[in-house]
Amino acid sequence: MSTGRLESFSDGVLAVAITLLSLDLAVSGPGHGTLAHQLTQRWPSFASYVVSFLVIGIIWINHHSLFSNLEKIDRVALFLNLLLLLFVVAIPFATATMAEYVRVGGSDSHLAAAIYAFVSLGMGLAFAMMFLWSSSRGHFRVPLDARTRRNAFVRFSIGNLAYLVAIGLAFVSAWLTLVIVALVALYYSFEQIAVAT
Amino acid sequence: MSTGRLESFSDGVLAVAITLLSLDLAVSGPGHGTLAHQLTQRWPSFASYVVSFLVIGIIWINHHSLFSNLEKIDRVALFLNLLLLLFVVAIPFATATMAEYVRVGGSDSHLAAAIYAFVSLGMGLAFAMMFLWSSSRGHFRVPLDARTRRNAFVRFSIGNLAYLVAIGLAFVSAWLTLVIVALVALYYSFEQIAVAT
Amino acid sequence: MSTGRLESFSDGVLAVAITLLSLDLAVSGPGHGTLAHQLTQRWPSFASYVVSFLVIGIIWINHHSLFSNLEKIDRVALFLNLLLLLFVVAIPFATATMAEYVRVGGSDSHLAAAIYAFVSLGMGLAFAMMFLWSSSRGHFRVPLDARTRRNAFVRFSIGNLAYLVAIGLAFVSAWLTLVIVALVALYYSFEQIAVAT
Amino acid sequence: MSTGRLESFSDGVLAVAITLLSLDLAVSGPGHGTLAHQLTQRWPSFASYVVSFLVIGIIWINHHSLFSNLEKIDRVALFLNLLLLLFVVAIPFATATMAEYVRVGGSDSHLAAAIYAFVSLGMGLAFAMMFLWSSSRGHFRVPLDARTRRNAFVRFSIGNLAYLVAIGLAFVSAWLTLVIVALVALYYSFEQIAVAT
Repeated sequence: MSTGRLESFSDGVLAVAITLLSLDLAVSGPGHGTLAHQLTQRWPSFASYVVSFLVIGIIWINHHSLFSNLEKIDRVALFLNLLLLLFVVAIPFATATMAEYVRVGGSDSHLAAAIYAFVSLGMGLAFAMMFLWSSSRGHFRVPLDARTRRNAFVRFSIGNLAYLVAIGLAFVSAWLTLVIVALVALYYSFEQIAVAT
Repeated sequence: MSTGRLESFSDGVLAVAITLLSLDLAVSGPGHGTLAHQLTQRWPSFASYVVSFLVIGIIWINHHSLFSNLEKIDRVALFLNLLLLLFVVAIPFATATMAEYVRVGGSDSHLAAAIYAFVSLGMGLAFAMMFLWSSSRGHFRVPLDARTRRNAFVRFSIGNLAYLVAIGLAFVSAWLTLVIVALVALYYSFEQIAVAT
Repeated sequence: MSTGRLESFSDGVLAVAITLLSLDLAVSGPGHGTLAHQLTQRWPSFASYVVSFLVIGIIWINHHSLFSNLEKIDRVALFLNLLLLLFVVAIPFATATMAEYVRVGGSDSHLAAAIYAFVSLGMGLAFAMMFLWSSSRGHFRVPLDARTRRNAFVRFSIGNLAYLVAIGLAFVSAWLTLVIVALVALYYSFEQIAVAT
Repeated sequence: MSTGRLESFSDGVLAVAITLLSLDLAVSGPGHGTLAHQLTQRWPSFASYVVSFLVIGIIWINHHSLFSNLEKIDRVALFLNLLLLLFVVAIPFATATMAEYVRVGGSDSHLAAAIYAFVSLGMGLAFAMMFLWSSSRGHFRVPLDARTRRNAFVRFSIGNLAYLVAIGLAFVSAWLTLVIVALVALYYSFEQIAVAT
């Protein structure tokens, strides 16, 4: 199977998911307190909008980077890509839920943050599996040398371990989770997975 | 008519439909019981989210597979493709309705499950018709031999018969319907319609 | 300006608009009467879903057909295309509003149907203007002969006149409007605008 | 990194964002006064729908124009593009909020209009930065001469200054803000940023 249409489908899903994030910004409208008050109360929505936008944006960049070096894609990689998209599509839900419960605080906010970190972890693991599968099957246009593969593995591990830690810390503070997810996104902004040596 | 832009339009519709599935995951928010309770109650939404995601994902894979071997597309195939998309676009609605009524159970849940299976059947039949029409008109880049055509016909029949059975069994148990639709999706994951010999 | 990216942007908008039509299918859920009752009451939503799906589907086919013969696009055509999309994007709104008010009937249903026909007319006029502008400026890959241009003009006029009539008849019966819009869509299914001789 | 997939992703986001604008057109339905009354009350929604449609349409045209002359894209431009999309995706939210509060007037309408102008400014600044960065790094296929760069800088400055003024004037009148944003869009319709000499 060629990679072209898989990229265009994935781009579509990523573009819709990133745009749906904005639905959670909506305020309740007139009659629910002043607008300034509503916006202040809803600032977790704005903070998590920015973080999730960055998370999906980074996964798009890494997805693009991976596919630009993919020569072919087999059925397993196809399903790993579907699994990746399944988690990406759940991000607007996880973001909205976390933002909503962070406003009220308490144990529900911890659970909501844990779900958010879990969805991020699912996305990260699916991406790592797709990368490792494709590289182990020799589907890369330019094969990776041992050092590049090891580096990529280290980077995946750092991100996914951080997500795992974020799940645990969610039960201490939802904000801590959001900060960790944001830091992982920033980390991947600077330390992208190299797919061509 | 060339197939390129038809693929890109279909990809767009499939990508939006698969992403809209996530809208049904939204919880009611604070003040409607604990989040854990809400999520537990809503687990039919999560189960059917995964099944419908797989259903649309598989139809995308088969669509791609079919089009990669299509040399030309005539007006009939164009309208069969629109018919296919009409049912695909209805999947988020059918999924949300089923998930909602499965939670309360009773005869409404049976009707909701029957609608879900009906939409899947409509999608399956439209795809089968598009395949059979294109192959009978010689629109394939690589013509299929008799055995491949017979195999494809058998596979379409298995899937569509299973959907038909799912409609009937919906009136016994909505869960049975969801399981059958999931099994058909898994079946097509492993036994894809061959369009090139 | 090349036509490639304009096509991909237009495809995206058309694909999202056609998929958003499904949002109006949602039922009110448990506690609002039996599901069978709700679906029966909401059948205007299903009827207008099919008609609007066909309307957007046909405009996509004609859009594709027009652009496959466009060699270049100037600023005026670019803005006419934006105008076309502005009306296309309003179709889910017009469809939902009509379906909702047709259920209760009365003078509001007439106004809602008139809006629906008006949006269709706006779409039809924008498309006709884009066609006539591009053909009069010689932007076609294969120039049209006089007879093809005359035929195209006749077809546009028939469709847009029918939409105009549909606006008037909306004040007699909303259903009449829906039937006329459906008939225009069917007419264009068989009598597409030829853009290559 | 090649620019092709970045364009297709950006096209997707812009197409979804422009289509989501229509969600704000929805009326409350039967039982909330006559439809004519509701539509009259909601005319700020229709006015701002047209303006925001034009704003996103113009940014798409300029985005296309810029990318048609981009030879390569580096990481900074990639993130500036993400920043641009972050503001574009917020436009449906800002549009809906402004339209809603303009109906009731008062100080909340001023704040809502200021947010609308602020999102437009964010979008304008991100685009200007992406343009200036790419041109200063020599990423253009056809390098710009000094005069073209100066002209582009003047045009960016005019638009962004106008947005800044619109933020200030929002506290005088929300309508003034909408008019200024509309005028900037019209200005860019006629005075597009030249990216090829």
